[in-house]
Amino acid sequence: MPTRDLFELRDFEDAPLADGEVRVRNDWLTVGPAMRVRMSAQTRGYLPPYALGAPIPGWAVGEVIASRAPDFKPGDMTLHQFGMRDFGQGPSAAFEKLPSIGSPEDYLNAMGSTGFVAYFGLLEICKAEPGETLFVSGAAGAVGSTAVQIGKAIGLKVIASAGGSDKCALLRNIGADAVIDYKSPGSLDEKLTAAAPQGIDAYLDNVGGDHLDAALANANPRARFAISGMIGSYNQDQVAETMRHLNRIVTQRIRIEGFLPYSDRADLLVAFRERMAAWIANGTVRPWQEVRTGLGSVPNAIQDLFAGGFTGKPLIRLHADVAPL
Amino acid sequence: MPTRDLFELRDFEDAPLADGEVRVRNDWLTVGPAMRVRMSAQTRGYLPPYALGAPIPGWAVGEVIASRAPDFKPGDMTLHQFGMRDFGQGPSAAFEKLPSIGSPEDYLNAMGSTGFVAYFGLLEICKAEPGETLFVSGAAGAVGSTAVQIGKAIGLKVIASAGGSDKCALLRNIGADAVIDYKSPGSLDEKLTAAAPQGIDAYLDNVGGDHLDAALANANPRARFAISGMIGSYNQDQVAETMRHLNRIVTQRIRIEGFLPYSDRADLLVAFRERMAAWIANGTVRPWQEVRTGLGSVPNAIQDLFAGGFTGKPLIRLHADVAPL
Repeated sequence: MPTRDLFELRDFEDAPLADGEVRVRNDWLTVGPAMRVRMSAQTRGYLPPYALGAPIPGWAVGEVIASRAPDFKPGDMTLHQFGMRDFGQGPSAAFEKLPSIGSPEDYLNAMGSTGFVAYFGLLEICKAEPGETLFVSGAAGAVGSTAVQIGKAIGLKVIASAGGSDKCALLRNIGADAVIDYKSPGSLDEKLTAAAPQGIDAYLDNVGGDHLDAALANANPRARFAISGMIGSYNQDQVAETMRHLNRIVTQRIRIEGFLPYSDRADLLVAFRERMAAWIANGTVRPWQEVRTGLGSVPNAIQDLFAGGFTGKPLIRLHADVAPL
Repeated sequence: MPTRDLFELRDFEDAPLADGEVRVRNDWLTVGPAMRVRMSAQTRGYLPPYALGAPIPGWAVGEVIASRAPDFKPGDMTLHQFGMRDFGQGPSAAFEKLPSIGSPEDYLNAMGSTGFVAYFGLLEICKAEPGETLFVSGAAGAVGSTAVQIGKAIGLKVIASAGGSDKCALLRNIGADAVIDYKSPGSLDEKLTAAAPQGIDAYLDNVGGDHLDAALANANPRARFAISGMIGSYNQDQVAETMRHLNRIVTQRIRIEGFLPYSDRADLLVAFRERMAAWIANGTVRPWQEVRTGLGSVPNAIQDLFAGGFTGKPLIRLHADVAPL
């Protein structure tokens, strides 16, 4: 678990704006579980570790306040990875001008990599078909809550797991057909069997461990598992998970696949955004978020994220000129 | 582990040959790990459990000795699943006339479902490309030994694991680039890292458990794992496997897939047989087998299979008219 003393708020002088660069005042930041992977010395094939003593990179949206690049002018709204700071600056190619659809902060949540992971996981990895049964673990999280709503939008029966009765009630409100409180007494295998006696055809895994094992125990033949995260394991170098149902991979011909669509399949991003904007506009998907205020709230937000302290996507509102949601 | 008292040699009267049926004298039988799955009361989506008190079905090749079906005549050689008995009888649609290529007993091994699993796993599931590194666990077994040879035939670097120095020496003889003796002291993760410092791109898993975990620990980005069997787990209802590297499914975008090509992708069988027959004819693949004699040897063969007592495919030669190999 990242401790508070590992973080420091520090002032940096603005570097002079070089030719081809833009400077942005950030409005919104977000934090996500994958950040923890980059806080290790070894990421072995994933994105590189964060540099010590330098600002942490991270997703942000903000407004261009100065530009020496022909493709940006002051007032343009952008999405970029110069987050975890109040002002971002860099070559214009590292900034994306926000499309005209959707709200800026949604590009850090349902319209951004979070929503894209849920969408890609269900439609491209699981290839879930109407009438099939989907299990979503960590369903009160950012990816999970979006996946539950996409699942209902495309005609799936959706089983959702979360920790605690409050989160479970919220999941029923957004349409989950059955909800599992993993913190309640009893075996997760059996709770999933009770919630999905017909078995599961697709699984979006945000948790790993016992949730993955319960999904294996309840998988129908040719079930597809999209592994979008294993938040339970990111704070340990090696997590010893006890798995009892791995042999069902063979007997049920299960496919299990990890994926990082934002870096690997950016070609699908435009189609995804159009579909998601329409879902948000007609109320099919309601982006979930929990808002905190000010750059100084980032370290606690990271800690709370791993302690299950958020429902939906953590958003950090950076200054008073941004209207609260 | 199936005990000896569960098996019984019993005489049955021949049923009269009905219209459309054929009767076959079996020459060769085989036994395989998947049989164990069907010895459980619950197979949950796999082939159904064996019926108690009835002959065990199983793969066999033999010669038609009587036919009331227009598509078979005495002397025809057939492949079928009326094995674990000296004579098989049933509707002609349940028998396949052997193609003219290859030796009859090879249809229970490299030309049959065993070879098809190895072929399909490497070419269709792993989609292994020349120059990539393949890891094969249980490589001295029937599927594994065929996979090692196919891997070399298609230009892969092949790392093979087996238990004991004799099996390891045999694997070097058939072309494995590096061999891991999983029974020698030390961590399997580290042995695999030493054998494949460049990491692995494809994995054919016949073992599961610690072998699967070591493959995860050493997987390159976008590695593909074809899970053809988990022989270590078939004799227990639930096997508690300790897995330490499951989170690499996400960070390395690994795909893990169980498959049963003989029932699911019979459309590829003709192409597979032609390619395998050519490989056998030119010496690229040498089918491995270990031969026992007589129907009474079946129960011990099943037990030995799970104790690692075979190298290559177990074949049972049923009568003295069949030439020894």
